Amino acid sequence: MAQKLARQTVRLEQPPYLAGFGNAVGSKEHQGPLQDWFDGYSEDDRFGQKTWEKAEKVMQEQALSHALKRSGMGAAALDALLAGDLLNQCVASSFAARGQEMPFLGLYGACSTMGEGLLLSSLLLDGGGFRCVAAVTSSHFCTAERQYRTPLTYGSQRTPTAQWTATAAGAVVLAAQAEEGAPRITHVTVGKIVDLGVTDANNMGAAMAPAALDTILAHLRETGRSPGDYDVIVTGDLGVLGRELLLELSKREGVDLSNNHEDCGVLLYDTVAQDVHCGGSGCGCSASVLTGYLLKNMERGEFSRILFCPTGALLSPLTTQQGESIPSICHAVAISTRKEDF
Amino acid sequence: MAQKLARQTVRLEQPPYLAGFGNAVGSKEHQGPLQDWFDGYSEDDRFGQKTWEKAEKVMQEQALSHALKRSGMGAAALDALLAGDLLNQCVASSFAARGQEMPFLGLYGACSTMGEGLLLSSLLLDGGGFRCVAAVTSSHFCTAERQYRTPLTYGSQRTPTAQWTATAAGAVVLAAQAEEGAPRITHVTVGKIVDLGVTDANNMGAAMAPAALDTILAHLRETGRSPGDYDVIVTGDLGVLGRELLLELSKREGVDLSNNHEDCGVLLYDTVAQDVHCGGSGCGCSASVLTGYLLKNMERGEFSRILFCPTGALLSPLTTQQGESIPSICHAVAISTRKEDF
Repeated sequence: MAQKLARQTVRLEQPPYLAGFGNAVGSKEHQGPLQDWFDGYSEDDRFGQKTWEKAEKVMQEQALSHALKRSGMGAAALDALLAGDLLNQCVASSFAARGQEMPFLGLYGACSTMGEGLLLSSLLLDGGGFRCVAAVTSSHFCTAERQYRTPLTYGSQRTPTAQWTATAAGAVVLAAQAEEGAPRITHVTVGKIVDLGVTDANNMGAAMAPAALDTILAHLRETGRSPGDYDVIVTGDLGVLGRELLLELSKREGVDLSNNHEDCGVLLYDTVAQDVHCGGSGCGCSASVLTGYLLKNMERGEFSRILFCPTGALLSPLTTQQGESIPSICHAVAISTRKEDF
Repeated sequence: MAQKLARQTVRLEQPPYLAGFGNAVGSKEHQGPLQDWFDGYSEDDRFGQKTWEKAEKVMQEQALSHALKRSGMGAAALDALLAGDLLNQCVASSFAARGQEMPFLGLYGACSTMGEGLLLSSLLLDGGGFRCVAAVTSSHFCTAERQYRTPLTYGSQRTPTAQWTATAAGAVVLAAQAEEGAPRITHVTVGKIVDLGVTDANNMGAAMAPAALDTILAHLRETGRSPGDYDVIVTGDLGVLGRELLLELSKREGVDLSNNHEDCGVLLYDTVAQDVHCGGSGCGCSASVLTGYLLKNMERGEFSRILFCPTGALLSPLTTQQGESIPSICHAVAISTRKEDF
């Protein structure tokens, strides 16, 4: 039985294995500093499709296909597919799952979706009713710009605090049983919605940093761990500015994250040379960095215990038009290859 | 430990209790045949707010408040809130949860959301890591019309196969322990995405009926039950036409649902007198019928074992514009007060 440590954190009795993981990315992501860590990419971001939305769907399918391949399992082994994305009504996920004949559970956690997917998947596996589950998510720069901001062809000017929605998808296959040595999820911390009143939809790092802080502090408090217990604490997509805010806010709370904090939005691009302003964002940002750089470095033994904390801004264009501030969330997932943790 | 019966169905080892449930509806729903079963309503569908979207958010808050009150628990007892809705980026749910200080997990299952919420909640409770969880969802006629079709003020003509998005929210508080006699969830069946190629976004009953059939057949097959084992098998929002299709399709499969099948979309309105064409739809339709008519009749002993099967059409306006057909899903949740089931 899973064990509730306090309000938000659950320790998994039978830590589920990350049996396989995969990703697919766009051209800009493939030109960035993490290029060697991805499983596939599209030169023109279209993945052979007529529309950006169909391209995003195909990117999800490719990411799942890579993850299944690495796990050595077929699609028929999956007891459930948990997926979500940024598109209205999460259509990249539903359409990618269509025709795959898998029990399907749709999620909406904005850019925190991979965290929510991993967290729910591992709880389902630990509960005993499921043996093998996949968590998938994606984002696409062109679908996100059209939907949240303006169609690309308008050529709108971006503000300095803006982030660049990653064209990327990531998938993880989780299993109750897998090869020894595969990374395992030991703890999950479910985030609360935090909203300190930021209303600038072009400054999502600032809106999300307090949510990241809230969840990381809850995780450390409830597990009795300190930041140094992790090789790296990696947030989803705070970007350059949001990351600075998180470090500043955590210092005020007496917690020093400066030694081992990374942010997927900062890692994914060369923020200056690639002109992405504050860095990457989107569900696919943390999902592709996790399933590329982070988990592959765990396989190599570079990291043996990480805290993956993707962040999401739960706004819509309409809530911004109606003058609302930006509710944000962050879920934390502790992943380990250390035997002492199981 | 929960027990997987086959691909899609899980039997819960410690069937979670529906400790409390509540709802809030709009004026049209309150004028319908189920008017005596609701906990609250708004005369002008605005719930005291300036915009329809803010009204939908308040309706969710009220439904949860009624559910918590009936459960005798406070908000602080909730280990997690699972919520979703039809609005782009599920903002009714995120904004209703904001400020409630609860661990939050966002779902997207279109009109099947209450099914997805109940099934995930019961699996989390059965897994041992959670003690008390709430599942909430909503829809609002005016927010849905603006988003999916045209703003109300355009006065668009509705097609004969159209359904009326319910202005309604429903909430269920589930707990690992509760008063004896409270209904309990014994089995959950996770739906697959089914798409037989229907492209008419004004005929969602036809698109969703095959998904309902697929899940109901999987549930009966995997549990070894027959339709007569349930007092009522109730789908979410197939409407008049979709319900006819389901009965016809199931007959062809050798399963007779005609004796004890009901549809929330048909139950919610007087479809002729209230001029709603094929009946109700929207996440709030099945959620309010469940938390009103169905669960209150279980309390009274009218029903002792029901199969709740909300259906969702996972389209968006953009997928329709891009010529796509409508992927649909249905989740099934078996709810019982029969001691032999636990």
